[in-house]
Amino acid sequence: DQPTPITVAYGDGIGPEIMSAVLEVLEKAGARLAIETIEVGEALWRRGITSGIEPSAWESLRRTKVFLKAPITTPRGGGMKSLNVTIRKALGLFANVRPCPTYAPFIQTAHPGMDVVVIRENEEDLYGGIEHRQTEDVVQCLKLISRPGTERLVRYAFAYAERHGRHKVTCLVKDNIMKLTDGLFRQVFEEVAREYPNLETETLIVDIGTARLAARPEDFDVVVTPNLYGDIVSDVVAEVAGSVGLGASANVGAEVAMFEAIHGSAPEIAGRGIANPSGLLLAAVLMLVHVGQGDVAERVHNAWLATIEDGIHTADVYHPERSRAKVSTEGFAAAVI
Amino acid sequence: DQPTPITVAYGDGIGPEIMSAVLEVLEKAGARLAIETIEVGEALWRRGITSGIEPSAWESLRRTKVFLKAPITTPRGGGMKSLNVTIRKALGLFANVRPCPTYAPFIQTAHPGMDVVVIRENEEDLYGGIEHRQTEDVVQCLKLISRPGTERLVRYAFAYAERHGRHKVTCLVKDNIMKLTDGLFRQVFEEVAREYPNLETETLIVDIGTARLAARPEDFDVVVTPNLYGDIVSDVVAEVAGSVGLGASANVGAEVAMFEAIHGSAPEIAGRGIANPSGLLLAAVLMLVHVGQGDVAERVHNAWLATIEDGIHTADVYHPERSRAKVSTEGFAAAVI
Ligand SMILES: CC(C)[C@H](C(=O)O)[C@@H](O)C(=O)O
Ligand SMILES: CC(C)[C@H](C(=O)O)[C@@H](O)C(=O)O
Repeated sequence: DQPTPITVAYGDGIGPEIMSAVLEVLEKAGARLAIETIEVGEALWRRGITSGIEPSAWESLRRTKVFLKAPITTPRGGGMKSLNVTIRKALGLFANVRPCPTYAPFIQTAHPGMDVVVIRENEEDLYGGIEHRQTEDVVQCLKLISRPGTERLVRYAFAYAERHGRHKVTCLVKDNIMKLTDGLFRQVFEEVAREYPNLETETLIVDIGTARLAARPEDFDVVVTPNLYGDIVSDVVAEVAGSVGLGASANVGAEVAMFEAIHGSAPEIAGRGIANPSGLLLAAVLMLVHVGQGDVAERVHNAWLATIEDGIHTADVYHPERSRAKVSTEGFAAAVI
Repeated sequence: DQPTPITVAYGDGIGPEIMSAVLEVLEKAGARLAIETIEVGEALWRRGITSGIEPSAWESLRRTKVFLKAPITTPRGGGMKSLNVTIRKALGLFANVRPCPTYAPFIQTAHPGMDVVVIRENEEDLYGGIEHRQTEDVVQCLKLISRPGTERLVRYAFAYAERHGRHKVTCLVKDNIMKLTDGLFRQVFEEVAREYPNLETETLIVDIGTARLAARPEDFDVVVTPNLYGDIVSDVVAEVAGSVGLGASANVGAEVAMFEAIHGSAPEIAGRGIANPSGLLLAAVLMLVHVGQGDVAERVHNAWLATIEDGIHTADVYHPERSRAKVSTEGFAAAVI
């Protein structure tokens, strides 16, 4: 078998530590990957490349079409737009898929029966970063919803639900306030829903919907929602399922797919070797499935599960009854290997 | 003592049932109130008054300056803006205060130790409902943050925290994406925070902040945040504390104050006599304190607590171990009385 070319970015903060750990696991698991490393984020900016991403990086991404990305930091104060958003938009990654399974009883959760996948729109909404200062004291930001953007996302969500044997798709919007924008999102959802009579569908206002997801996540299955709500809701669901530190995501476009942890670069603990590489490792598992190396994906996933089941963990997911050994980032990777 | 003039609206859906129950309790508790009833919402719209609120209603509100409001419904399809938002803005109710205590062990919660108050901005953000359709397929909504609006709210939150002996104020924003708008909110928060060196302060990104509120609400005290995040977060916190059905809120302005439940008009159960009047009753307790009838407030609050402690409840807050009698809306009010 030819190795699959992929692009990798080590990122900022805890990024380099967890990426090293993950790549070591992938290698030992026999993943057939030809890795091209690119630099993005603050590290690059510090070296004077203020765009935060080099032309050669885009070339690599367009060539490999698969991106495993560690968390990155957008330098503050430079007036720079979020690099994460720039990358998602430049690569046309319209769907952000965030499966939040539980690992009970090995990872603590009050909701062992939950199994929610959040599919969030990834290019529109308030994330355009179109802001302006009208007067010294008045600032505005533009929220955008388009029919093509919404339709692509909603169709992806329904196809995902069908492909994964899911039974319900819930749409979260605030269309009692934003009648045109969230109203359009809801309308498109209801139109596409009609093409899937075998799937149960519902629309909830995002306030009560998020509250129910927090308190009774067992009642939900696939959730589809605009960008900003999806940002909040996916963190809530991941945390309630166990920890945002375990959250993995696939950013899916027509051509390119990007895989990343849902957590940030956590600069406050960077360089201490204590970060949890699990979110990025589970993102790598999604990536291996995507590139057709399901055998390796399964091996890595099972090894990760076995490690957790053995009570071996980084400091962030301590379990009062099941913890056997608190280890470092590297120690955790070694245990998985 | 002269009775305090207040304005009351019975609202839509379950509104009339729960308002009757609440007013009966207040009367029996000896509240000294001179009630002026106004009509707002769908009921009025059905009678051809399409503004949803009559000039005489505004006059009453400007006169009494105290408003006890049941949930109302904005008619769909009429292209009408949210009546709730219209009222909040017309009356200048800039702060929406939502205390979310627990009533453990009598109301089920996984977090008996939590005691969070959410103070949400109530006039700005995306709630202006300034939307437009650029093309058939592209719609936009404007988010507004102003320094005076933010400063008034944040100052209110800090003064509230001090007055109520709270120790920490947390600000939730998404200023890594919305650098100007949420950035201004954060900046004002940090400026005002400097005037309160005795209070602990922190700013969290709203995604992880909401996730932590859902999973570890014990770590929070007073939360201050823009309108839309506050809408979502207050439902999450109320639900995790027990039920959104118990949530009460004070909408505070320079002149007028409005008291309401945080839940909606629940048209799907309207007229069946099963709705929980607790949210509105606890809002009335906040109102009684506001108008200087703290003695009556305490009496009502204690009677409500005693009812819950006796295991008497409406269907929505069933407790597997402590339930003794499931009663109707009227039955619940009778038990409180
Ligand atoms: C870092 C930030 C731009 C990002 C987002 O808001 O989308 C993150 O919170 C996420 O959820 O991936
Ligand atoms: C009914 C709706 C306009 C309102 C809001 O979004 O503010 C409600 O959800 C609330 O929280 O009071």
